[in-house]
Amino acid sequence: MAQLRIALAQVNPTVGDLDGNADLIVDWTRRAADAGAHLVAFPEMMLTGYPVEDLALRSSFVTASQRALDRVARRLAAEGLGGLPVATGYLDRRTVGLARPGQPAGSPLDAAAWLHGGEVLVRSAKHHLPNYGVFDEYRVFVRGDRLPVVRLHGVDVATVVCEDLWQDGGPVSVTEASGAGLLLALNASPYERDKDDVRLELCAARAREAGCALAYVNMVGGQDELVFDGDSVIVGADGTLLARAPQFTEHLLVADLALPAADPAVRPGRTPVDAQDGTTITIDRHVLAPDPLPAYPVEPQTVAEPLDDLAEVYAALVLGTRDYVRKNGFRSVILGLSGGIDSALVATIASDAVGPENVHTVLLPSRYSSEGSVTDAEDLVKRQGVHSRIVPIGDIVEAFEARLDLHGLAEENLQARIRANIWMALSNEHGHLVLTGGNKSELATGYSTLYGDSAGGFGPIKDLTKTMVWALARWRDAQPPGALPFLHPFEDEPIPQAIIEKEPSAELRPGQRDSDSLPDYAVLDPLLVDYVERDMGRDALIEAGHDPDLVERVIRLVDLAEYKRRQYPPGPKITPKNFGRDRRLPITSRWREPSARP
Amino acid sequence: MAQLRIALAQVNPTVGDLDGNADLIVDWTRRAADAGAHLVAFPEMMLTGYPVEDLALRSSFVTASQRALDRVARRLAAEGLGGLPVATGYLDRRTVGLARPGQPAGSPLDAAAWLHGGEVLVRSAKHHLPNYGVFDEYRVFVRGDRLPVVRLHGVDVATVVCEDLWQDGGPVSVTEASGAGLLLALNASPYERDKDDVRLELCAARAREAGCALAYVNMVGGQDELVFDGDSVIVGADGTLLARAPQFTEHLLVADLALPAADPAVRPGRTPVDAQDGTTITIDRHVLAPDPLPAYPVEPQTVAEPLDDLAEVYAALVLGTRDYVRKNGFRSVILGLSGGIDSALVATIASDAVGPENVHTVLLPSRYSSEGSVTDAEDLVKRQGVHSRIVPIGDIVEAFEARLDLHGLAEENLQARIRANIWMALSNEHGHLVLTGGNKSELATGYSTLYGDSAGGFGPIKDLTKTMVWALARWRDAQPPGALPFLHPFEDEPIPQAIIEKEPSAELRPGQRDSDSLPDYAVLDPLLVDYVERDMGRDALIEAGHDPDLVERVIRLVDLAEYKRRQYPPGPKITPKNFGRDRRLPITSRWREPSARP
Repeated sequence: MAQLRIALAQVNPTVGDLDGNADLIVDWTRRAADAGAHLVAFPEMMLTGYPVEDLALRSSFVTASQRALDRVARRLAAEGLGGLPVATGYLDRRTVGLARPGQPAGSPLDAAAWLHGGEVLVRSAKHHLPNYGVFDEYRVFVRGDRLPVVRLHGVDVATVVCEDLWQDGGPVSVTEASGAGLLLALNASPYERDKDDVRLELCAARAREAGCALAYVNMVGGQDELVFDGDSVIVGADGTLLARAPQFTEHLLVADLALPAADPAVRPGRTPVDAQDGTTITIDRHVLAPDPLPAYPVEPQTVAEPLDDLAEVYAALVLGTRDYVRKNGFRSVILGLSGGIDSALVATIASDAVGPENVHTVLLPSRYSSEGSVTDAEDLVKRQGVHSRIVPIGDIVEAFEARLDLHGLAEENLQARIRANIWMALSNEHGHLVLTGGNKSELATGYSTLYGDSAGGFGPIKDLTKTMVWALARWRDAQPPGALPFLHPFEDEPIPQAIIEKEPSAELRPGQRDSDSLPDYAVLDPLLVDYVERDMGRDALIEAGHDPDLVERVIRLVDLAEYKRRQYPPGPKITPKNFGRDRRLPITSRWREPSARP
Repeated sequence: MAQLRIALAQVNPTVGDLDGNADLIVDWTRRAADAGAHLVAFPEMMLTGYPVEDLALRSSFVTASQRALDRVARRLAAEGLGGLPVATGYLDRRTVGLARPGQPAGSPLDAAAWLHGGEVLVRSAKHHLPNYGVFDEYRVFVRGDRLPVVRLHGVDVATVVCEDLWQDGGPVSVTEASGAGLLLALNASPYERDKDDVRLELCAARAREAGCALAYVNMVGGQDELVFDGDSVIVGADGTLLARAPQFTEHLLVADLALPAADPAVRPGRTPVDAQDGTTITIDRHVLAPDPLPAYPVEPQTVAEPLDDLAEVYAALVLGTRDYVRKNGFRSVILGLSGGIDSALVATIASDAVGPENVHTVLLPSRYSSEGSVTDAEDLVKRQGVHSRIVPIGDIVEAFEARLDLHGLAEENLQARIRANIWMALSNEHGHLVLTGGNKSELATGYSTLYGDSAGGFGPIKDLTKTMVWALARWRDAQPPGALPFLHPFEDEPIPQAIIEKEPSAELRPGQRDSDSLPDYAVLDPLLVDYVERDMGRDALIEAGHDPDLVERVIRLVDLAEYKRRQYPPGPKITPKNFGRDRRLPITSRWREPSARP
């Protein structure tokens, strides 16, 4: 056996910020060197951030990524870190092979490189491209066809990228044949509820398949619609968990591994192997340091405990909100505070994410707002110390009504849109990002106004059912100050009990209650999850045990809401688009076209 | 040689409307029978409409498509049309082969079938899946691996689907080996400017490759963000154009073809062939009618002249608007009329699309609106006979300003949002669809207000540069009444000259002019097309001849606008989405979950 101290840099890059991400590489490589590591690994697409969407199709961006990689290699050496090998993700392009119709312009690659001694030692790229759920990678990447194997202190280390672990065949399937003693996987794998165990099981299974230990480094941080949770892990060749990083925070996971020494008779060179998926993978061998290190004393390793289910969801919302605000260059947020549970939870997430001193609330009472709504909202403002102002909307409603004769939903929607006008105006005037407070139960059933309560830059609770909104509010109130590092240490419970306990109402007409229009959330919410997220049809829903009459009713509600929402594709999504193919770009991106010719 | 009279049914299905689309198949098959055709072909995904997006992943929808296909086959026979073979697109699923990670749930197929004698004779599916531009097909389909060849009146007819023509290898590459005398291609190929010639050249090249005549039937009609232009063609084995359908209208293209007779020694059965793209295609032979028909007199064929460039763009906008309104169940539209060229052109397109009697305009003057704006708008109202009302917004602006202290852009945006509130309120009250008037030049450069002038259900001119807006307005005014079938026969020029000639202004502050903020459109627009649509980087733009200073300035403008627009992903697109994978569904879809158990 040979020893190797490996450092996994679970860090938080920003899409397009090549310089800032390069700084992260240098900074965390230094920390790894200080920890005595022999190898430091960074996430997938570290240098560009992930996902880059159609930025991958812009030639100048690919070139900038390649140059940034060369530059960071030289800079590491210049700063005395050239002796510590660095494995990192970046964006590259395929240069051999002709472009063909249907292939992404410029043949971009979701690439990985080893840097050493001021140079790029070896390059490879992700072979399996995910194209489902939140992933659109056939659109922007071509597949890699190489498994790099680098001999480091007598251990052969193979490198793969993210989806290569999730699908059969490809580079992982040839790893055992390569004789690798360690399989390194660079990832940008988004958080999903309950995904952490799936991921650990996957790593264990692939380690057994590859016949060697597996080190899995994941990105952390919020990027547009995604939150990466970190949760980097190292497992042994038998699948045993050896080390685990904490979730939702940057962390350097350092571990001393005892790994099988490479066969000295196996020499550098390229060997094509059948990859069990109809393709051929070329094993690309390099030798950096042929001989094992003299024995050294091992350090204890971190095995972080995963957060429990509610804490995990809440941590993801806080990090997602903080990074959306920060990475888009905002310092403060604004939101309407109605006195209801949704805006109360959003305000609390915002306080935890950016600090209550950067949270601006606006109370917008109308003639239909109850006395309690305003006093409950004011109670929350006092408990959290957020900024607040009251803008009664009665006069404005009357000014519209003097010009228009509106009834029913048209009148209700008008109030919601006036409120949105006010928070957008304050956003434009003062530069706060607007947070919007819709939850998934009301958005899915159409209990929401387009350009009204749904207006805003970021919706922290958009994918939470109402049941989950209540559960998280109760969970948050139950946390003592200082209990968890991602929570602001409020002295009192941040959300007034009265807000949690009151019956939900939109207060857009006299005496309105959610229960006038919607089934009880306890039965509605599980049905919504099955219909909207799991895409189960009517018969399957009934077979799963949902009440047949409720299934009929909810399918009608959701279909009508989806239909209306789809008829009004908002803002820049309007049609027709036959006349030009605009780019699909990340929301948050620091990438700007270079401002001078090289 | 053998004779065959083929009918291409260039028709306009609606996504999800299985019953309505089945009616179209029966109706147009009857027309083909009346025309004495021996074979009638319908577009790709005829039975479901196209594109179905994530509806393909819903098992109950795939099952409904399969059943609808069986039903339409039986119905054709019941209505005396069972003797006329029908080739049509529909949605199916692959039943052999295990599901694997990353493969679309349920293995949906973009399928084609031949119907005859009340039954489904043969099934196949698209092999090449487009996943670029407007296409996301790796997300929702798995690939087909068969080339069906049906012997009809002594001619072997092979069938492929759309993208199979556009990429090398696959079923087209084995067509010559199959000995087919006719290659039938079912398509849902969206209109693009100047695409028609590319398509004809492609058909000619593939006909020569396959060594046989090629019949290309395309969908027509608007579907969400896409417009299909029809333009179905038939070319000979040498690539010569034999017949061509008119664009942007439903049409039955009937042509008598003289085709090589099949070799009687070649029998039904399945033959796997290397498809030149790393896959194997199985030629699947069937015999429907082995012997050539007795000679019969041929009818003259249609060779429609393509529209000229401006007429083609205008026709696409009219059809796209009409179908968006109609397929979403609306009968009327509403739009703000500012007195400027953009809203004037949108009103005119709307009048041509749904008739002036279904167009409702609203004039919303503020303190900054010029006298001329109102009188020019009123002149347009009179010329076109559209409905109109005036709602001055001054009092409403003042009601907001009494509560908020706003300056600069915040104040300008407020006015735009008040106008949007009014047209959305009138839409909610009266059930009109809101048309929005932004053009590509102003949207790309950020000269637009989110939830303001960009609010609405459909934006007919969203992908037109300002230069093109003017060109189309002039073109439309120059058309005499009755000149073209897709234009309303106005007696006078529908757009007042004063509107075309005035200097453009948003009129959101005193004396404002577009030229205060934007470069001259004649130099701006070509640069926007190169940067936004062609994704050229800075150096490439300068090399293409754009002024370097202007390139700097426009890149800054567009990046900032994209950045802002992306920070505020509107309405239902808000974040984070890690917690559930919602469906991506078509905007227009008639599909509803079946309401009773079978």
